[in-house]
Amino acid sequence: MSLLDDLQWRYATKKMNGAKVPQEKLDYILEAARLAPSSSGLQQYKIIVITDKALLEKIKGIAYNQSQITDCSHLLVFVAWDGYSEERVSQVFNHMMDERSLPHNTMDGYKEIILNLYGPLGREWQAHHASKQSYISFAMAIAAAAEQKVDATPIEGFLPDKMDELLQLKGTGYKSTVLLPLGYREAENDWLVNMKKVRTPKEAFVTEMTITDAADMVDLPVTQSLDSFTQK
Amino acid sequence: MSLLDDLQWRYATKKMNGAKVPQEKLDYILEAARLAPSSSGLQQYKIIVITDKALLEKIKGIAYNQSQITDCSHLLVFVAWDGYSEERVSQVFNHMMDERSLPHNTMDGYKEIILNLYGPLGREWQAHHASKQSYISFAMAIAAAAEQKVDATPIEGFLPDKMDELLQLKGTGYKSTVLLPLGYREAENDWLVNMKKVRTPKEAFVTEMTITDAADMVDLPVTQSLDSFTQK
Repeated sequence: MSLLDDLQWRYATKKMNGAKVPQEKLDYILEAARLAPSSSGLQQYKIIVITDKALLEKIKGIAYNQSQITDCSHLLVFVAWDGYSEERVSQVFNHMMDERSLPHNTMDGYKEIILNLYGPLGREWQAHHASKQSYISFAMAIAAAAEQKVDATPIEGFLPDKMDELLQLKGTGYKSTVLLPLGYREAENDWLVNMKKVRTPKEAFVTEMTITDAADMVDLPVTQSLDSFTQK
Repeated sequence: MSLLDDLQWRYATKKMNGAKVPQEKLDYILEAARLAPSSSGLQQYKIIVITDKALLEKIKGIAYNQSQITDCSHLLVFVAWDGYSEERVSQVFNHMMDERSLPHNTMDGYKEIILNLYGPLGREWQAHHASKQSYISFAMAIAAAAEQKVDATPIEGFLPDKMDELLQLKGTGYKSTVLLPLGYREAENDWLVNMKKVRTPKEAFVTEMTITDAADMVDLPVTQSLDSFTQK
């Protein structure tokens, strides 16, 4: 099976049957999420795994009563940084440099660029930015689940502030971003399973563009070149 | 090869050699991006493909002079909706209903929910939300490229306003979100290719949580259940 086959196979499962996903498949999916790339390699997110039925019941109550929350095998809650700080970025980069046997100051120039870039954009922009990175990881988990023939339902429909309160995220520097219940379809009670998968036709989804389609802008050389910092 | 093998193989290629990616591999990668799931199935994004050297040179100038922009085979520019409107959402849902041979009003209740939810959050939030969806598609393109042994570099480092101006996106309802140059590594001149891939260790990346870790909140039943709308 190829990724395209897996993407054709998967769908946003509406009704799950409560069956358990084996530990090795769960581990595989989490590992794909962990290996996802992220902006500057910061991995501004992590995953909370929930199987506790009492907790899932509470989550369902703040997630529009979607049945997959309690009928899944494992609920993955993606949480991302609520903002950037020198301390947070340094911690990740120092770990990276340790793993690569390089001095901690190797990426100081690059760190300065990103902090100067993100700082003025404010905490809300920063939280959105970190959240976007968590969506890359989320997508890799979706692809991995499909490869393992595990059903999964991407869920944004929940009350994020209530979720953060319930999971006691306030004060941890993380905010909930998106949910992925993992489990198995109960096909006979799933209204979506036999519906046609609909996507924007390729002709509308992909556009080619050449210089003649572009604005007649004067060149705007950026004074700083990223290479000179990251190559240190 | 499995997805995990592909994710281990890939890296953010820093130096590309200019070699061409065959059309069938490009088509495969674009198809994976097209099949990605998105919030409410809206596919609030599309992809602009650029191979024109003159245009790539201009883009490089607003993307911190990163060499992959001009040394790649194809540059994918992901662009997403700048906001939600009744008209836009209806257009997608009507297409979906046509493809499923269902009446156009089938999802009216659901459409009302999401427009009422997104409306008050404002255009900036809406653009971030659409951008997040494009990151799922972006991630599927990254996974597909790795499966096809095509190198790719996820790039956020560009001036988005200048990009929108250059690509004449103003007035089209789209904003640029993220770039993915596709091509082939020039390993002997790539400082990153032999560096260890570093990620947050699994113990820190994955947390388990039970009801005893949660706040003692009273249940908050949401009055509306999404199922009752989407099942129509």
